[in-house]
Amino acid sequence: ASMSQQDEIELLKRQMAIMKENQNQFFMLINGMFVFFMQCGFAFLEAGSVRSVNTVNILMKNILDVFVGSLSFFAFGYPFAYGRPGNSFIGHNNFFGANVDYFEKTITVDNSTLAGYETSSSYFANWFFQYVFAATAATIVSGAVAERADFACYVIYSFTITGFIYPVSAHWVWSPDGWLYTGAGTGLRMQDFAGSCVVHVCGGVAALVGAKILGPRLGRFSEDGKLNAIPGHSVPLVSLGAFILFLGFLCFNGGSIQRISEDGDGLIASLSITNTIISGSGAGLSAMLANRVYNTVKGNGKFWSLLMAINGALAGMVASCAGCNDIAPWAALTIGSVAGVMFVVARNVVLWAEIDDPLDAISVHLIGGTIGTISAPIFAIRGQMVGGKPEGGPLYGGGIIAWKGVGWNLVGLLSIALWSGICCITLFSTLNMVGLIRIPKSVEEVGIDIKKHGELAYPEAFVRVISDEKKKK
Amino acid sequence: ASMSQQDEIELLKRQMAIMKENQNQFFMLINGMFVFFMQCGFAFLEAGSVRSVNTVNILMKNILDVFVGSLSFFAFGYPFAYGRPGNSFIGHNNFFGANVDYFEKTITVDNSTLAGYETSSSYFANWFFQYVFAATAATIVSGAVAERADFACYVIYSFTITGFIYPVSAHWVWSPDGWLYTGAGTGLRMQDFAGSCVVHVCGGVAALVGAKILGPRLGRFSEDGKLNAIPGHSVPLVSLGAFILFLGFLCFNGGSIQRISEDGDGLIASLSITNTIISGSGAGLSAMLANRVYNTVKGNGKFWSLLMAINGALAGMVASCAGCNDIAPWAALTIGSVAGVMFVVARNVVLWAEIDDPLDAISVHLIGGTIGTISAPIFAIRGQMVGGKPEGGPLYGGGIIAWKGVGWNLVGLLSIALWSGICCITLFSTLNMVGLIRIPKSVEEVGIDIKKHGELAYPEAFVRVISDEKKKK
Amino acid sequence: ASMSQQDEIELLKRQMAIMKENQNQFFMLINGMFVFFMQCGFAFLEAGSVRSVNTVNILMKNILDVFVGSLSFFAFGYPFAYGRPGNSFIGHNNFFGANVDYFEKTITVDNSTLAGYETSSSYFANWFFQYVFAATAATIVSGAVAERADFACYVIYSFTITGFIYPVSAHWVWSPDGWLYTGAGTGLRMQDFAGSCVVHVCGGVAALVGAKILGPRLGRFSEDGKLNAIPGHSVPLVSLGAFILFLGFLCFNGGSIQRISEDGDGLIASLSITNTIISGSGAGLSAMLANRVYNTVKGNGKFWSLLMAINGALAGMVASCAGCNDIAPWAALTIGSVAGVMFVVARNVVLWAEIDDPLDAISVHLIGGTIGTISAPIFAIRGQMVGGKPEGGPLYGGGIIAWKGVGWNLVGLLSIALWSGICCITLFSTLNMVGLIRIPKSVEEVGIDIKKHGELAYPEAFVRVISDEKKKK
Repeated sequence: ASMSQQDEIELLKRQMAIMKENQNQFFMLINGMFVFFMQCGFAFLEAGSVRSVNTVNILMKNILDVFVGSLSFFAFGYPFAYGRPGNSFIGHNNFFGANVDYFEKTITVDNSTLAGYETSSSYFANWFFQYVFAATAATIVSGAVAERADFACYVIYSFTITGFIYPVSAHWVWSPDGWLYTGAGTGLRMQDFAGSCVVHVCGGVAALVGAKILGPRLGRFSEDGKLNAIPGHSVPLVSLGAFILFLGFLCFNGGSIQRISEDGDGLIASLSITNTIISGSGAGLSAMLANRVYNTVKGNGKFWSLLMAINGALAGMVASCAGCNDIAPWAALTIGSVAGVMFVVARNVVLWAEIDDPLDAISVHLIGGTIGTISAPIFAIRGQMVGGKPEGGPLYGGGIIAWKGVGWNLVGLLSIALWSGICCITLFSTLNMVGLIRIPKSVEEVGIDIKKHGELAYPEAFVRVISDEKKKK
Repeated sequence: ASMSQQDEIELLKRQMAIMKENQNQFFMLINGMFVFFMQCGFAFLEAGSVRSVNTVNILMKNILDVFVGSLSFFAFGYPFAYGRPGNSFIGHNNFFGANVDYFEKTITVDNSTLAGYETSSSYFANWFFQYVFAATAATIVSGAVAERADFACYVIYSFTITGFIYPVSAHWVWSPDGWLYTGAGTGLRMQDFAGSCVVHVCGGVAALVGAKILGPRLGRFSEDGKLNAIPGHSVPLVSLGAFILFLGFLCFNGGSIQRISEDGDGLIASLSITNTIISGSGAGLSAMLANRVYNTVKGNGKFWSLLMAINGALAGMVASCAGCNDIAPWAALTIGSVAGVMFVVARNVVLWAEIDDPLDAISVHLIGGTIGTISAPIFAIRGQMVGGKPEGGPLYGGGIIAWKGVGWNLVGLLSIALWSGICCITLFSTLNMVGLIRIPKSVEEVGIDIKKHGELAYPEAFVRVISDEKKKK
Repeated sequence: ASMSQQDEIELLKRQMAIMKENQNQFFMLINGMFVFFMQCGFAFLEAGSVRSVNTVNILMKNILDVFVGSLSFFAFGYPFAYGRPGNSFIGHNNFFGANVDYFEKTITVDNSTLAGYETSSSYFANWFFQYVFAATAATIVSGAVAERADFACYVIYSFTITGFIYPVSAHWVWSPDGWLYTGAGTGLRMQDFAGSCVVHVCGGVAALVGAKILGPRLGRFSEDGKLNAIPGHSVPLVSLGAFILFLGFLCFNGGSIQRISEDGDGLIASLSITNTIISGSGAGLSAMLANRVYNTVKGNGKFWSLLMAINGALAGMVASCAGCNDIAPWAALTIGSVAGVMFVVARNVVLWAEIDDPLDAISVHLIGGTIGTISAPIFAIRGQMVGGKPEGGPLYGGGIIAWKGVGWNLVGLLSIALWSGICCITLFSTLNMVGLIRIPKSVEEVGIDIKKHGELAYPEAFVRVISDEKKKK
């Protein structure tokens, strides 16, 4: 019954490979849980930011993101994004889960690292981790079109974004087949670790297009161009959403390494988390200050706005996604502080343009994502990792190739913005033409909840309002 | 100071065994955290579904589940469920934590897998993971008896379910000594991976018995049989609970493998999570549609009900528990979609029978659990794992033994339903006889919070109501 | 291409060391996530416990803890607490992240354990885990000074506690250089596994000093010494916070071992979690009972108070921090039950002393922490771990050295209480003198939200109150 030393060594190597594979999947699944919980965060950020008569509607939309997104991303989205073989534009395998051998166990131990590559073993762990990212991209839009988008419109665009638009964006940058990953012959690689561009610019452009085509909520802008405040109904709900999103972003970025078994993996996960919280902190504080200065100058009063601090911090975390794995904390603080100020600027530009974005989703995600995409290669320590070898960022001796890397990120930024923009203009314009985009005026005036869902967010409060009305008569 | 090669190999084997043990406990603990958080999910699902005058009461009950459950399950529940030696009906060791050597470290390295079996090392990790499941079983009942159960009744049944009724159910199916696990000479093994039957049928039957014996809330059914709506007070609270429960269910099912160190473990955890979200998504959508069709036909109006989508999705996740580790995603979608529709049907049957279940706990857990228990062996890929060897499910070449496995699951389903039913009828009838089951009518009319807890859910709102009343006079 | 057996063994040893390092960081990061989420728990515990006109303010303060705390703890706090070299009073390295080599990978495999020590690899994982503890210490204070502290006061003390006061406390007990850790020549070591003293006594004393120097809220105590109730505005929000804190405490204590790679690590993590939930359960129930008895005797009515059960449970969990890794569950139940009763006693003593602590933070953290600090060495099984060797607790054969260990914990308790007290008296007195400590009376009367933040927690409710006022006129 005794084994030879060589057999024991082979057993150890095999067991080590199994441990690594399990560890990596465990890591992806648990980080995926926290990112999944971001759906709850978005739901409450949005629920608190709308009027109570539309609260059931926005909660419904966020829950549908989970349901519609999981089916859409399983059937189409993941295959388009990561199905191999794929070409440089899109993946094309595993539609509806085809060609996945559920219980195949083929371990090929790599003799230099002892990592084991099982052909199908990690399919579902990868799917789950990517799915929660795709659902995030779709959810961004729900805030921008809140309180007026039709139910059918929502289901259709949620399906399309998780099933097609976002997956193509992910394929370009994160699939080994994608053209922004391979460099398309330039020898460059896009640097977007956790999705400043892939997720947030993609979703942010969709939010911009959606909000623009839908038009503003009734009464948001007077005919003389005056802005009317339509405050949300509950700051505690907004804050609950914010805390959950802060938590989720730490795992959104920290989990993006997608493994924790090789030398230095723990460090990259930890550094990503550290940079995310520091970037968010800087942004929250800078947005709060910028907003106070702006309102003081405009004569609106000297206030410390909680909502600005929250959205500013979110913009900072969005901006940290692209480079959090490869920048120093001082750089994270710099990027975040800029993102916080730019969020306040962008928010006022959007209002000036008479685009109604009840959640400031455009300013958080599109602007935060843009800042992150551009700044990541500039502040990068190791820079582009072509062939697993770091090239060095421009501030760390990378030279001309490093600046070309900044250019490549700009190419990626513009390409993904264009891709998402063209797709969404087509999509929302079509929905507009066929009359499925916006709820009728009569519904918008009374509130969507009672008309479309037959449910009120706070039934008892409603009863009291009704009885107040009766008293008046 | 140099070691021989054989000594180095022995050290490596020992360290590998230690890593596996640690990894498994880490996995159980973290998944257990998310399942523990389901107590918060249930609390808010229920708090939002009751009137504001009974909200403190339902929150109290859910918090007591955590407190009473931990003591009851430590002293009695876990020993009954998993204490070894045990007989085929019940375990009987480790009462009050006896015979657990806290810091004993005896590693026996298994030479074929390098897994290490420490005699007592994993006692507490197992206890915690099982405790959070037991607490779930007890919590299911709190929804069905909401707004009328007496405080003493609640404490007693919560203690009994976590300390005795549920543990026996768990022992039968999940303890290596249990008769549904060993097959009692039939060579069959019950297939209930994460507890469609063990947890949800057991808790669902208790909910049915409790709701029936307590009788409906005052005014729920008019004497002419007319149904009066008693809406809950806050849809946002319900939705918060739902999001937390969705999250928790992913770990409830994904964590049920209870280890992540052997070949293929990660795949089973990942597949379980994937199937859970897909089953829940299918069920949420199918319940929403079925409810819309039903109400349209009945002339109640065409609505997309958020509450039906939420409860439908929960029923779908409950139905996925039994087989999520061993079915294809298309099967999960099928099972979930059926569960969603059956939830809507069951809900209306329960109402027709004039059983008042404020949370639809019966329809979610008993019906969802039943569907899961029956469908798991039917759609199973590998089927019963007797002796670690898969037999193959009926659709995957398993033949007659596979269909016998379906029968064995039916035996288990009926046995556990009977067990829970008989215990709960005895328990609730006794409580009824001694007058500890239901709050007095005077308390029910005013609300439990002010009378029994001296605390109001929303003190400021109350002040305003009082001042309104005064104004009227 | 084939390797010699010795090369393969060296590779395996190196890979084992890498796995351990990754596993430990993964463990710290994930537990840190749940502890980070405690900020959300504290925010809602506090938000629900204050009036709705001050709710935005308290949410803002809790979010600022996250932002200000991360910058302060990165720049100063962690370097003071753990920067090495350090002296027995304070650490002094790594200010602003200096001297951290981000991507250095130097593994020195320890031949007896195969653990790998990378010089800088775990810096950020440690930072994140310690940061979330520091933020907790600061947050404790926010409850005690709620509804009256000035915004500037809050930012300054939050910065100081996370950047200096708490780090010194942590250095003394948890840094290998600290005098309570080394024993300062006595051969003793303070036993405070997860911070009953380091975190909760430190924060609790700060809360006491802050609440005392600020004075009570307007109208809290009448001139004749009568106590006026100022109920919070939402029990559901309080309960949400409580559930999140219960969850967080399990990881606060379970994660404090800070690694899960060596023999017995999993057991200690699991035992810590088990003891935490059992201690909290005992405390919740005993506080609920003690409060009922007290109020019955005082003639205030017989109530089961949810808020007392919640705060009692928190006190019990605080009391379990110090010894949860090294006591039997029966001891945890004993400690918790005492903490629950003492919480109720302390709460009434604080009120009698006319100190206004809207969150009972003093009674939860200072009293709970004190009980934990004293009881940990008394009930310890293995006792002080000097040189990695357990000495045995007084009840487990430890003899006179074990009782000296109890004395050393008392020395630590008094020293940290004095340290925090002196620092906070200096800090808050200075803020008082320069007029930055308390909001103006005019602001306190109307509510801080509208005056200082320009945002209302519930804008629609406000609109209705205004319209009611108009109707009256």
